[in-house]
Amino acid sequence: MIVDPWTSETVDYKKIMKEFGINPISQEILPDAEQSIDMRWFKNNIIFAHRDLDKIFNAKKQGKPVAVLSGIKPSGEFHFGSKQVVEELVMFQKLLKCKVYYCVADYEAYADNGDWIDKTKQTAVSNIADVFALGLDPKHSYVYLQSKEPIVQEYAFYFSKKITNATFKAVYGDKPLSLYMSALIQIGDILLPQHPSQGGPKNVLVPVGVDQDPHIRLTRDVAEKNGFISPSSTYHYFIRSLDGSQKMSKRNPDSMLTFADSDKDIKRKISRALTGGRDTVEEQKKKGGNPEKCTIIELSNYHIESIAELQQRINKCKTGQLLCGECKQQIITKLTEFISKHRKKKEKFIPLATAIVERGIFDGESEEGKKLIKKYLGD
Amino acid sequence: MIVDPWTSETVDYKKIMKEFGINPISQEILPDAEQSIDMRWFKNNIIFAHRDLDKIFNAKKQGKPVAVLSGIKPSGEFHFGSKQVVEELVMFQKLLKCKVYYCVADYEAYADNGDWIDKTKQTAVSNIADVFALGLDPKHSYVYLQSKEPIVQEYAFYFSKKITNATFKAVYGDKPLSLYMSALIQIGDILLPQHPSQGGPKNVLVPVGVDQDPHIRLTRDVAEKNGFISPSSTYHYFIRSLDGSQKMSKRNPDSMLTFADSDKDIKRKISRALTGGRDTVEEQKKKGGNPEKCTIIELSNYHIESIAELQQRINKCKTGQLLCGECKQQIITKLTEFISKHRKKKEKFIPLATAIVERGIFDGESEEGKKLIKKYLGD
Repeated sequence: MIVDPWTSETVDYKKIMKEFGINPISQEILPDAEQSIDMRWFKNNIIFAHRDLDKIFNAKKQGKPVAVLSGIKPSGEFHFGSKQVVEELVMFQKLLKCKVYYCVADYEAYADNGDWIDKTKQTAVSNIADVFALGLDPKHSYVYLQSKEPIVQEYAFYFSKKITNATFKAVYGDKPLSLYMSALIQIGDILLPQHPSQGGPKNVLVPVGVDQDPHIRLTRDVAEKNGFISPSSTYHYFIRSLDGSQKMSKRNPDSMLTFADSDKDIKRKISRALTGGRDTVEEQKKKGGNPEKCTIIELSNYHIESIAELQQRINKCKTGQLLCGECKQQIITKLTEFISKHRKKKEKFIPLATAIVERGIFDGESEEGKKLIKKYLGD
Repeated sequence: MIVDPWTSETVDYKKIMKEFGINPISQEILPDAEQSIDMRWFKNNIIFAHRDLDKIFNAKKQGKPVAVLSGIKPSGEFHFGSKQVVEELVMFQKLLKCKVYYCVADYEAYADNGDWIDKTKQTAVSNIADVFALGLDPKHSYVYLQSKEPIVQEYAFYFSKKITNATFKAVYGDKPLSLYMSALIQIGDILLPQHPSQGGPKNVLVPVGVDQDPHIRLTRDVAEKNGFISPSSTYHYFIRSLDGSQKMSKRNPDSMLTFADSDKDIKRKISRALTGGRDTVEEQKKKGGNPEKCTIIELSNYHIESIAELQQRINKCKTGQLLCGECKQQIITKLTEFISKHRKKKEKFIPLATAIVERGIFDGESEEGKKLIKKYLGD
């Protein structure tokens, strides 16, 4: 079975974990977090597995530098899967008090979808503004476009000679050269925080979905042999699409929520979403709903409510007190409120995001980065 | 038969020309050249074939912009093959009064020989100083390192999606990914003079050896479909190595002359070089030598003497008046004189070459380039 980043389908998580030596998260390795940090990604077990996450926390404990890296393909507006990744980054940024690298994977978008980098710039601006609006602190962020980051490209070329064609085929399957090159670029992304200009070797955490694991495996294969520290990774479940079929993905736009949705869109999409409801109202009142099947409950779990609120909703569902129509209405209200608030926040980050895309590279800890923050966000 | 740039062997030029549609040079397409321009590469038929060379001269005649591009792998000191390519560039620069692009192929050197770009910097400085000392006018030159030229890298990634794996295999044979990437980089090199920042589409001439033709073919395959003008090319014979076995190449250091050779080295190498001499002095005085076999005659033809001088040497050889020992002594004298003069010229270009390698890109027609020239060469 080849799980690769370009043909993501519903995956058998347990099988993959076993096959590739990914470990389940045991709560003991997690550090004590300040009350203000939203730890639900761990508490709800959405981040369910890892490689060397303990090494990140240990390094931090010993006062060693650590960093976190993730990114997005600028091929569309943020959906709630993109939101999830960013909120994980925000959590780690607070937990580890470290620099977070956010890669706008415009080369991958081209290799995968065929849109050349000039066509994805506008989307990149919007995506970056979303990232800051969701709470990533620009003062400790490094945001860049793959096509504009010479370090990443240099690493890609460097490692092209360290990996055999047979390995590429074994890891990714038989793919076009552009996708192998995109994979090399992503090795460059993952190792960027260890570049001398970034302070040299350090433990770097890369929160990903399991479909991105080939990049992690390949990077781990070559990192230590070449003077880097092997990257750590965490793995999260993805929220299913609203029809319950597979992960929420840009490939299936009708059944996912995006940040560009109007109130009407949200209402329509939620109204049509798969629930665990019974065939008739009478039956549901009697037997209760089936929250395990319900994409609305999942949405609440991932994105909307606290664990206590969610538990209440599940109880009411199971006992037939809360029917799907009313439940959906509540979620629609909360969702439209969230989107509306988010848009207002996002607006003020558009000028900074535009400047970042124009420059191609933004380091909030550099002098130039600090100036940009001051210019566009004030103090 | 696959002729690729990485396994160059003695080649059947005629067969290749027929197979790949390369045309012999007919003297009519050559423009009238000013007396001061050394046209021996055409006159001696060393440049023996081309693709669309007429288009270059026609474009020039019509007042359209043209450019010339070639380059070197910074994997060793200049040998007389490298000298030949540069002198062709100098000829074209004078003939076409145009900008010449000279690529220091440090990525190709890495892909091919395994020396990472930090290891080849010193060689790059020396190579670039040689280029200017041989007469390339820095005021109309664009000299760059592949690893530092974002346009080239961007084109490489762009075209990675336009060429199938099957095409790569058909053109280059089954090669490691790093060599395919290096080929893509070279498509980027060839198209660089047509980048918007360089004035957009134009006819570009690329003087190469036949072993480099795959890059030309592949670039021609994709250029027009993607808004570029198909590059033109010329093909030259390579001087044989001094043992007469194959082309003079860095792969066979003992039988080639380099610019780093001492007078002693030159004397030793020339003394051992293959000639067309007979078994005994008596026999040679009687029958004359065999200049067709002689690598010294070839050296004279390519690098040392005018056509008239060469003709005289051949006549004296054939009639037994000039024996190999004396002939070699004359050539040794001329060679050591050339090398010594060249070294003096080269010295004054080292600071500029160093600045170019530090920056990675030098455009003699830009404001920054003009400043550098003024700073390091005066007016």
